[in-house]
Amino acid sequence: MRIDIITVLPELIKSPFEASILKRAIEKGLVEVHMHDLRKYGLNKYNQVDDYQYGGGAGMVMMIEPLDKIITDLKSERDYDEVIYMTPDGETLNQGIANHISLKENLMIICGHYKGIDQRVRDMFITKEISIGDYVLSGGELGAAVLCDSIIRLIPGVISDETSALTDSFQDGLLAPPVYTRPAEYKGHKVPEILLSGNLPAIDQWREDQAIQRTKDRRPDLLSDI
Amino acid sequence: MRIDIITVLPELIKSPFEASILKRAIEKGLVEVHMHDLRKYGLNKYNQVDDYQYGGGAGMVMMIEPLDKIITDLKSERDYDEVIYMTPDGETLNQGIANHISLKENLMIICGHYKGIDQRVRDMFITKEISIGDYVLSGGELGAAVLCDSIIRLIPGVISDETSALTDSFQDGLLAPPVYTRPAEYKGHKVPEILLSGNLPAIDQWREDQAIQRTKDRRPDLLSDI
Repeated sequence: MRIDIITVLPELIKSPFEASILKRAIEKGLVEVHMHDLRKYGLNKYNQVDDYQYGGGAGMVMMIEPLDKIITDLKSERDYDEVIYMTPDGETLNQGIANHISLKENLMIICGHYKGIDQRVRDMFITKEISIGDYVLSGGELGAAVLCDSIIRLIPGVISDETSALTDSFQDGLLAPPVYTRPAEYKGHKVPEILLSGNLPAIDQWREDQAIQRTKDRRPDLLSDI
Repeated sequence: MRIDIITVLPELIKSPFEASILKRAIEKGLVEVHMHDLRKYGLNKYNQVDDYQYGGGAGMVMMIEPLDKIITDLKSERDYDEVIYMTPDGETLNQGIANHISLKENLMIICGHYKGIDQRVRDMFITKEISIGDYVLSGGELGAAVLCDSIIRLIPGVISDETSALTDSFQDGLLAPPVYTRPAEYKGHKVPEILLSGNLPAIDQWREDQAIQRTKDRRPDLLSDI
């Protein structure tokens, strides 16, 4: 997989790609991530990328021309499966969407900043608009990092133990059951007996019951989707 | 506001706090963010922080003792309004929750990794469990960065133009209307006439109509909540 991220703040999301699972995925050659500084495509001697919005009002808007130039440049080099715009009014990311996108080959991700990008960029170039949740962030950069993490970890070979990803929350439509590790007793707080029993079928049953109960208590909406 | 973030990968979320709005908020003294490396509280000569889960199965679990030590240390220094655990089975973050948390003074945020933290840590110390959305990430670090961004930008003085935050998506229960900036025509694509009219009441009306229409088209669930 190849991911091109277009942003005015490449330094903002440097570190998530230089640590842990994303770093290893890149080092293993399972994914290439390229950050592009939109300012290099900015206008005039100030490398301008944003301007006041038509109709008045607070907040700057990212201009069409720099984005057109960089998107067109990248598209001339390869075909993109999706040109994604991170925006709070996009489709809300969920595990199903992450699974789906993780199968793609070439992705371009545009990070908005300030008040967003000129609507004409969305009309002309964007094939998918994604929100990571119903809240506003300073820009699309953290959203892009979240999207990348959610999809890259699903690429075969990225996580060493694949069953670990399969038993995560949401993959089976349920929240994950509680987990415990040593010591069996800590300041009077004990691990549930069943987990120490060695009775694997009973443990599986307990975990399923716990997952269902936790989902009922916390996210009954997930159960009604099944 | 003071935020203490506990993680095994402090380097993973370094950059979001060193750029743009979060950086400026820290420099202005409006928020203090302290990263704590959980490994410094790890056990034995390996600074162990995780172990196999009881009952078997893939994925490591973060141990209770290192977390107990650091949480207790921090709590001895000041009172925390919330001790937050980032987890996919927590309450789903939304703008209302972000608004609410942005009024707090001292926050501790625990980032899970691997399979999560020992359930007893959750039972003993955690006052709020937050998910940033229905998808699984490699760890809680990006979630913590997202949570911090969503709340820090709401602290008075962080964003220079406060009306800009107030007209963002979700603050009034609607998605934001489309935005445009110069040029008025680009490769045949024109800005809507109304925005060039200078008729401010008509522009306000158009924006409200567009916001309602976009919300109806994309997120009818938001309208039914009003």
